Amino acid sequence: MPNEWPTVHYKEEGMREGMQIEDANIGVDDKVELLDMLSETGLQSIVVGSFVSPRWTPQMERIDEIVTKFTPKAGVTYTALALNARGVERARAYSPPLTIERDAYPRLSCHLCDVFARRNTNRSQMQEMERWPEIIAQAQEMGITEAGIGCNASWGSNFLGEFPVDSLMTLFEYQYGLWEEAGIGVRSCSMGDPMSHCTPAKVEESIVRVKERWPEINHFRLHLHNGRNMAIASAYAAMRVLGPEDTLELDGTIGGFGGCPYCGNGRATGMAPTEDLLHMMEDMGIPTGVDIDKLVDCVWAAERIIGRELYGHVSKAGPRPRASAGNLYDINMPFVETLEQATHFKKGEQMYEGGLYPYREPVTSPYRDRVDQGLPAFGTGADEFPWNQDWLPKAES
Amino acid sequence: MPNEWPTVHYKEEGMREGMQIEDANIGVDDKVELLDMLSETGLQSIVVGSFVSPRWTPQMERIDEIVTKFTPKAGVTYTALALNARGVERARAYSPPLTIERDAYPRLSCHLCDVFARRNTNRSQMQEMERWPEIIAQAQEMGITEAGIGCNASWGSNFLGEFPVDSLMTLFEYQYGLWEEAGIGVRSCSMGDPMSHCTPAKVEESIVRVKERWPEINHFRLHLHNGRNMAIASAYAAMRVLGPEDTLELDGTIGGFGGCPYCGNGRATGMAPTEDLLHMMEDMGIPTGVDIDKLVDCVWAAERIIGRELYGHVSKAGPRPRASAGNLYDINMPFVETLEQATHFKKGEQMYEGGLYPYREPVTSPYRDRVDQGLPAFGTGADEFPWNQDWLPKAES
Repeated sequence: MPNEWPTVHYKEEGMREGMQIEDANIGVDDKVELLDMLSETGLQSIVVGSFVSPRWTPQMERIDEIVTKFTPKAGVTYTALALNARGVERARAYSPPLTIERDAYPRLSCHLCDVFARRNTNRSQMQEMERWPEIIAQAQEMGITEAGIGCNASWGSNFLGEFPVDSLMTLFEYQYGLWEEAGIGVRSCSMGDPMSHCTPAKVEESIVRVKERWPEINHFRLHLHNGRNMAIASAYAAMRVLGPEDTLELDGTIGGFGGCPYCGNGRATGMAPTEDLLHMMEDMGIPTGVDIDKLVDCVWAAERIIGRELYGHVSKAGPRPRASAGNLYDINMPFVETLEQATHFKKGEQMYEGGLYPYREPVTSPYRDRVDQGLPAFGTGADEFPWNQDWLPKAES
Repeated sequence: MPNEWPTVHYKEEGMREGMQIEDANIGVDDKVELLDMLSETGLQSIVVGSFVSPRWTPQMERIDEIVTKFTPKAGVTYTALALNARGVERARAYSPPLTIERDAYPRLSCHLCDVFARRNTNRSQMQEMERWPEIIAQAQEMGITEAGIGCNASWGSNFLGEFPVDSLMTLFEYQYGLWEEAGIGVRSCSMGDPMSHCTPAKVEESIVRVKERWPEINHFRLHLHNGRNMAIASAYAAMRVLGPEDTLELDGTIGGFGGCPYCGNGRATGMAPTEDLLHMMEDMGIPTGVDIDKLVDCVWAAERIIGRELYGHVSKAGPRPRASAGNLYDINMPFVETLEQATHFKKGEQMYEGGLYPYREPVTSPYRDRVDQGLPAFGTGADEFPWNQDWLPKAES
């Protein structure tokens, strides 16, 4: 079952989505240190923060200092969120190193949840829709031939409940029709989920229906929140139904922190933990170029800075050990019980020293001997499977 | 895209998988209280603990007191893990209320990881395999016509690294062949993952290949650990490729705690958080019969008992609000930022009282008015979509 996955572009949102819901008093130096660490992981796209009103988002009040002090890394795209012209203007003063983020496609988008649109952006859904004719007119003037459709709060809302995928598709039909009337093709579809109502089944159904309806759409964006622990499964479900002809833009945060004060879940909102999601992708054969070990350093730094444990798992158990990575565990390690002992995957065997050792004789295994010699644990053919192998000592019954 | 899902049987493992890696001094009364709370959630299958050596698992030393003191609920199946004849004998003394757990099928199974087999069960893989002829002979004597195949550490090991699905399939081919020689059909396939090496792609590939190879296998068991945050996505991937003719047995723990001292990850191991997984299933239309609110009570009780926050998310953000459940959030709620404020979904609006309120005028929305009247937020047809609706006030541009 050789899977052919889409091209995935991953954007690290911890400095923005994460920090915006944490203590406003976290220092600039701490944030700059974390941002500089993120730059060294291999991540290609990092959001550094947002240029928004310090009155409602005091966590971003000192964003100017951060973008002045951090050390940009060549090859990394740094962006900042700006919600209005004033914000874009502020960001532009720091470009470079910032890249002024522009959607690759002019896009018609709105929130399916009118309440969240009003709470978060102070605009109604209808006001969002009323901007569409202008967006279309501008695209026509610029001679643009490919555009996007999009939705936020795509699958449900804490204030209005569930939105069936039928509603999402009706919205997309309408948006598509507007582009079609303007003689502009649609290539991209964006789905956001600020209130953590995604499920893998709904994300999968949405993408499958969009692709069936408009096969020319081969660019997808997913911004999934994780308040109900569905972001990783939903991201997988999306990769599962996209193919090598497709591009998927995905967002997440180291440790899985994040949220906004408007959705009603605060710090319980979160996003997919970057380290867990990228580690999954690597295992699937989707290259990320990211050093998971350095990413774990970033998670630990973030936890120290914000003062509590974050949601990700790979930062606690470590990545899946691999012979090729030289990080298989000692087969004679003693009991490992606590979370502190579990950090041996980075901090070394002294973390579990003194743990209970329950074996009378040291554990040995001919399989580990093979692996230590650079051989696979099992041969590749049925005949080579262990039961017939000379190297395998038969048990004494 | 109407999905037809398998029948899912869910087993709550918190009292066993969870408690076995926690402090051995947690009191019997606390455990009994938690077990009794679990009984009231609607869960149909609960593991109460294990009858194992108190020398190596002091957390289960007082299991006899627990099974004596807890209040069995009619209709709930209570089981206990026993790893040998002595353990089964001890458990039998409490049956009823305990059900002595028996695999529905005689099964050939072993660990793909010889090292973990030795560390965890003090037997080599070859010793596990050497029991197979006896299992087959017993099945023949009993006239059994349907049997199972199975594997533990199916996708990888902390001590040997990754196991390709090819290796798993080679093992299954061998097991299947042994049953076939004995004239016994195979209907069930079990895959365990004690060291958290599952990924959704590997689980999906494994199930698809088993089903393609042996279409008569329609019963699957998955025991997935979550040290790398892949258990929920993997469970979804399994449901995704199984159909209504299939049965899937799944295990997990409230809050997602769990692990063993032998795998090297200790408390960082975990399983899929029951509350998150079952909440997903309900959304997919797979009935669970479980009251998520009561399940969250159990998670909070478990967190109090073990003294730290657990891994699940629904216990922090609450379930996805639904109009039908009467739990939509107040559209004029103030900022919700902290995890404590986020508990308003159970504890009420006093949790966020005094939070910043950023709106000059109270937020109103014609959509919420509709929902409060029992109408769907959106009509079902394209014509009924909001932009043409009389009830929708047009924005003042």
